[in-house]
Amino acid sequence: MSRIVQKFGGTSVADPERIKAVAQRVKRELDDGNQVAVVLSAMSGTTNQLVSYVEEVTPKYDPKEYDAIVSTGEQVTIGLLALALQNEGINARSWMGWQVPIHTDGVHGKARIERIESEELDRRMNNGDVPVIAGFQGIGPDNRVTTLGRGGSDTSAVALAAALGADRCDIYTDVDGVYTTDPRIVNKAQKLDKITYEEMLEMASLGAKVLQTRSVQLAMKEGVRLQVLSSYTDEPGTLVVDEDEIVEQAVVSGIAYSRDEAKITLVGVSDKPGVAARIFGPLTQANVNVDMIVQNVSEDGRTTDLTFTVTRADLRHACETLEGARDEIEYRALISDADVVKVSVIGVGMRSHAGVAQTMFSALAERGINIQVISTSEIKVSVLIAEEYTELALRALHTAYGLDSE
Amino acid sequence: MSRIVQKFGGTSVADPERIKAVAQRVKRELDDGNQVAVVLSAMSGTTNQLVSYVEEVTPKYDPKEYDAIVSTGEQVTIGLLALALQNEGINARSWMGWQVPIHTDGVHGKARIERIESEELDRRMNNGDVPVIAGFQGIGPDNRVTTLGRGGSDTSAVALAAALGADRCDIYTDVDGVYTTDPRIVNKAQKLDKITYEEMLEMASLGAKVLQTRSVQLAMKEGVRLQVLSSYTDEPGTLVVDEDEIVEQAVVSGIAYSRDEAKITLVGVSDKPGVAARIFGPLTQANVNVDMIVQNVSEDGRTTDLTFTVTRADLRHACETLEGARDEIEYRALISDADVVKVSVIGVGMRSHAGVAQTMFSALAERGINIQVISTSEIKVSVLIAEEYTELALRALHTAYGLDSE
Repeated sequence: MSRIVQKFGGTSVADPERIKAVAQRVKRELDDGNQVAVVLSAMSGTTNQLVSYVEEVTPKYDPKEYDAIVSTGEQVTIGLLALALQNEGINARSWMGWQVPIHTDGVHGKARIERIESEELDRRMNNGDVPVIAGFQGIGPDNRVTTLGRGGSDTSAVALAAALGADRCDIYTDVDGVYTTDPRIVNKAQKLDKITYEEMLEMASLGAKVLQTRSVQLAMKEGVRLQVLSSYTDEPGTLVVDEDEIVEQAVVSGIAYSRDEAKITLVGVSDKPGVAARIFGPLTQANVNVDMIVQNVSEDGRTTDLTFTVTRADLRHACETLEGARDEIEYRALISDADVVKVSVIGVGMRSHAGVAQTMFSALAERGINIQVISTSEIKVSVLIAEEYTELALRALHTAYGLDSE
Repeated sequence: MSRIVQKFGGTSVADPERIKAVAQRVKRELDDGNQVAVVLSAMSGTTNQLVSYVEEVTPKYDPKEYDAIVSTGEQVTIGLLALALQNEGINARSWMGWQVPIHTDGVHGKARIERIESEELDRRMNNGDVPVIAGFQGIGPDNRVTTLGRGGSDTSAVALAAALGADRCDIYTDVDGVYTTDPRIVNKAQKLDKITYEEMLEMASLGAKVLQTRSVQLAMKEGVRLQVLSSYTDEPGTLVVDEDEIVEQAVVSGIAYSRDEAKITLVGVSDKPGVAARIFGPLTQANVNVDMIVQNVSEDGRTTDLTFTVTRADLRHACETLEGARDEIEYRALISDADVVKVSVIGVGMRSHAGVAQTMFSALAERGINIQVISTSEIKVSVLIAEEYTELALRALHTAYGLDSE
């Protein structure tokens, strides 16, 4: 007997027919002798419809009311799934965030879960009942509905799995697992049976949109075994687990990329102590996140060039901020470029293997791909290259690290 | 300064544009120096959509889950109106049933309000804030969402007006008040400035669909002054008040009709004590409500005929029940007729005026309209006639009682 939390996203509960299919999947786990709790998102499309109502009513909105409105989507799907399960003879009931309750902080629109009162759910699961819980929502200290922000339902599922001491948290999506790289670009990409939390975290934050970063962080912290799998097939998916659960660890597990990058170069910045603070201070104040940073060696001893990346959405705002602060920063020219992509190789095996970065640089050099910026961490190497080389770079690296399927 | 509860139905909040118009109406009451609380229904169409989801998922449904699902409609509109009001610079927030809380009994799908904790709303209204409260819903003893059943939002509004000690409860609808009779049939029908609770109750239960019967009962019991008015115009509507507030009371205030009637006659029933119990016992058990009843004088001293009415929806079920109980009841024949209409003249003035029924019988006789069944109460006279005479009868009676406009 295992205790499992199953989470189904918006496309898996898109209409009454799909909801009935989810009920069958829950029933199969029960028939195998397992205890099951289910976490659901809203029907795909519902949240967008509700957001568009909000935008039609008012340009600026109170996040408290926004939360009250958008949280209705999950309330509908959990009620419908509870009914579909009851129709299969299963004792099921719906639980809204305030009913569990799932206590969050009061930051409406992007609340964090603080505590889950899971005793009643626990008792019912021991009884063979199936709690169907609204993802994405909780209740704040002010007794109002809060939502967890983008991808919040994954986080709800992991937090519930931790609170309920679940053996596994299965995240059902429209892909069947985590791949060595994007299979739409590299047709020799392979589905991974297992991946470590840290690698998954890097993959998620570097643009592999399978799991939401926050949910992986929480799973790692709480030691929740995650499985990513498809609600359309019966194949096993990818397990996200601790490093010590993976016996033969590849040096590089996956190659991620993100097109959501833009590069800014400040030319001829005076090379004096405090220059970085003068540049990044105004950007921080303007709420612009800076990612990769490279400071060139000063050639004349007086000025230098400084390159860094921001998200494409922030590019314009970042440039305006820097132009506004030109007098304080003192630079000769500002050059921006949105046609860049960040490519990263990721693997916990890097810790014990040298030469991983060198393999990357060689593979890219052989294809004549120029590296604009490099950044590294313990388990990844990222490079910024011109966007037009994305596919070429991914295929070259996938082969160079021996990840191609036969 | 008055304290007013405003209730807007589904067509008044059908889309974001209409919701912004509602915000303007609320603002006008505030600008006049009044305190306002608002009660809303779901957008028209939303509840039907949600019910159709339920029916697609399962043929029989758990009313607890049904309530969780359908109560989302009001949750959306109250959030949107709160935003629209904030956009006008008004301190407004949404309140779901469980947040107020509005305590109900546990009869899901048709719960009754038991108690409203209105202290916080009261405090905020004194502060000039506008609470926007979800109609139709409350919370049951099991901490789950309950709904009040058909027309429940009117009842929510009246119950809140009573709890908040409001000076008036304004029910905004798509008609501009209560008329002496259906203006679509009688073009000389007049809008009433005032009507008593008792008359309104008879009008409502006799088919004038302006207000839900339960809400009028509650208003009468709690002494809440009701106003029925249009959300499309700025005209005053009809006030529903105590009899002593109406100085010049007409003998007859209005003429109502209901097509939702069917007639059953049992011919040759043995005329012995206990015959009524033998007939209506099985119907009660079969959940069929019987309305008008007439028992003929027995001609031969041994058998009699018995005529009564049921709703059209119940007709078939009632006939099957009576046929199944034929041996116990003992009757010669069963005749049913769905082509009938009940026409009623209503007025508290009848208490002190004789001849009201006679005027009705004469007016109908003059047009050659045969009366099939008659029933009377202290303030109304109802007759059952063939449906084809509906319009003719309404116009004749409207003139006979001096209700025609000039």
